[in-house]
Amino acid sequence: MTEQVFSYKYPRPAVTTDCVIFGFDGFELKVLLIERGLEPFKGQWAFPGGFVRMDETVEDCALRELQEETGLNPKYIEQMRTYSDVDRDPRERVITVAFSALVKIEEVVGGDDAAKAKWFSLDSVPRLAFDHDRILRDATTFLKHKIHFEPIGFDLLDEKFTMPQLQRLYEVILGVNFDRRNFQKKMFATGVLIQLDEKCEKARRRPPKLYKFNLERYNEMKRKNEFKLEF
Amino acid sequence: MTEQVFSYKYPRPAVTTDCVIFGFDGFELKVLLIERGLEPFKGQWAFPGGFVRMDETVEDCALRELQEETGLNPKYIEQMRTYSDVDRDPRERVITVAFSALVKIEEVVGGDDAAKAKWFSLDSVPRLAFDHDRILRDATTFLKHKIHFEPIGFDLLDEKFTMPQLQRLYEVILGVNFDRRNFQKKMFATGVLIQLDEKCEKARRRPPKLYKFNLERYNEMKRKNEFKLEF
Repeated sequence: MTEQVFSYKYPRPAVTTDCVIFGFDGFELKVLLIERGLEPFKGQWAFPGGFVRMDETVEDCALRELQEETGLNPKYIEQMRTYSDVDRDPRERVITVAFSALVKIEEVVGGDDAAKAKWFSLDSVPRLAFDHDRILRDATTFLKHKIHFEPIGFDLLDEKFTMPQLQRLYEVILGVNFDRRNFQKKMFATGVLIQLDEKCEKARRRPPKLYKFNLERYNEMKRKNEFKLEF
Repeated sequence: MTEQVFSYKYPRPAVTTDCVIFGFDGFELKVLLIERGLEPFKGQWAFPGGFVRMDETVEDCALRELQEETGLNPKYIEQMRTYSDVDRDPRERVITVAFSALVKIEEVVGGDDAAKAKWFSLDSVPRLAFDHDRILRDATTFLKHKIHFEPIGFDLLDEKFTMPQLQRLYEVILGVNFDRRNFQKKMFATGVLIQLDEKCEKARRRPPKLYKFNLERYNEMKRKNEFKLEF
């Protein structure tokens, strides 16, 4: 039996996808990494991802690889940027399309492949394989920009959340501290928060109020390009 | 003499770049297109672009193809998005990385290859080859978003310009009409405009004032993520 090969008149790069998955544990912003089992960079950490098949888009590839390697099935994954430095993979020419998604940390279920998936706090990420350090830097910048235009808490927080949880999320992403009253005022001004009648169950003398997002209002604002947060 | 072929264990997509080049003639926003001389889509219009070589990044490829096909040498070209629908090219699997740049229209010089390059007003663009209609829609959305964060007039206007020229540029990109005083007030508030002592030379009873951009101030704002225009 001869091995099948695929031949072309001109040389072609291989094409992969990589997924930068952010999660929030209520206190820290984290990123999901996979320990590499094979060379190159064996034993180092890298983003979930893999080679694009001929019958799938890069978006399909990113979602498939993510599912296979981490058990995650996000509804949506956002294309970020394509990286094509000539020597970014020591094996051969590989162009990668990087994606980013925000997920709830508890949604990561282990599979066989997922055994090596692990959440890292952004400030304790080890040196990554390939050019993934650069991709992570870009993804973090991308997220900081995005937070002004989309209520990303939808994806990262529980359906119901407290104002301190929301504030903490914005603080860790933007790397700043907000005045409590000022933050609250600006958030209410966006019109995307709904205050609930119930309060946070964990017993305290003054249980904090619970909120949820008004997705309808948000989608309308987004359509009209109205959602903007200024800090 | 046998023809050289390049063989791989797994099939690989071809990778191309496409360049969406916007120009402003003082009145309309235009896009630069190339008439295709070969099948598929022979005789239809498409973006300048071509196949990525093994020794160049996608950015280098976009700039090289743009130079070859239009004579343009922009300092900078911005990666926008990668398109990978399985059937987007009738010949075979081709993934394309789309770029966007803003240029001054007079910078397009014809070469042999550039003979077929032509500027089209955005509202009279014909049906384009491949999925380039979709890419153009995305690029226009991208530009509308970008205009809030970067004083893109730097690239599209002459070094010295009048307030009506600047206003017209924003109006055609955003597809709205602004109140003259209000527009002027917001533009001054950004701090990136410098009013010049000279006035527009074309003789009139009241020659309009000339302005230029304060690039230093702008770069500082961009670094600190401060530049924002709200309309």
